[in-house]
Amino acid sequence: METMIPNPTTAPVISSQDLLKHWQAHRGLTRRVIDAFPEKELFEFSIGGMRPFSKMVYELLAIAAPGVKEIATGTSEELKEDLSQATTKDKILALWDEATAAIDQYWALIPDEKFQEKIMAFGQYEGTVISSVLYYIDNEIHHRGQGYVYLRALGVEPPNFWER
Amino acid sequence: METMIPNPTTAPVISSQDLLKHWQAHRGLTRRVIDAFPEKELFEFSIGGMRPFSKMVYELLAIAAPGVKEIATGTSEELKEDLSQATTKDKILALWDEATAAIDQYWALIPDEKFQEKIMAFGQYEGTVISSVLYYIDNEIHHRGQGYVYLRALGVEPPNFWER
Repeated sequence: METMIPNPTTAPVISSQDLLKHWQAHRGLTRRVIDAFPEKELFEFSIGGMRPFSKMVYELLAIAAPGVKEIATGTSEELKEDLSQATTKDKILALWDEATAAIDQYWALIPDEKFQEKIMAFGQYEGTVISSVLYYIDNEIHHRGQGYVYLRALGVEPPNFWER
Repeated sequence: METMIPNPTTAPVISSQDLLKHWQAHRGLTRRVIDAFPEKELFEFSIGGMRPFSKMVYELLAIAAPGVKEIATGTSEELKEDLSQATTKDKILALWDEATAAIDQYWALIPDEKFQEKIMAFGQYEGTVISSVLYYIDNEIHHRGQGYVYLRALGVEPPNFWER
């Protein structure tokens, strides 16, 4: 007789829905960090030879919605950071909101069992679906943390990290 | 007849073991970021009125092992950031390694079904076990990202974010 006890190494610690909610809450905070930048400094201010925050945001936009679409549809996406139309804060925020909707839309198409599957993200990064998604989230937190330093250096109070 | 299809809202996207591995890989990177700081600057360098990186690390140390111990044992932990013995980089790295072992030890005592339980972390932060653990990891990535800016401002090449 088969037992019904789930394999302990695959028991759930977070559901797909909760992970999406977690990420979108982070993305809401990142949106407020973008919005906290003065227009000019978003595109020009830099420390230690690093990119201005707008360029970090281009990277996040290039990864998030295309990355989820790739997982959901199985089509290989290109990593495109050239966002020449994102020349103002308002345009960046509009792209951010489009990505928010696209992430929700494509995430709903990912079956739970897919998270353990192997993928080659953007045709070049080997991992599983879950390791790729965690990378996208962690990379956003990493660069947003850098944005906090830029804001502090500019004398701007950033939004609280714990408010999502 | 009962179906054997798991509830889709609680299906696993990551296991407890994989989440621990994910965090410890992040912690390995954070250790290398600490180590990349010149001794003096670890304790003194700051941008925009922020804390020196050593003080951010005190916070991470105060959270990580005590936070996991609290979850595993159910005893309420105090948030203690006073690490007056951590006065050199070597001492901080030694505390970091102790925490690494303690996290492994206490994590093994957390049953999978506990991750959805409600807790009051450090007697004051309401959440679930999983939301608390994700907070601890995200908070580390956030402050480490700030450490990257400090290193760049100091002319030190930080370790690659993607190497864990």
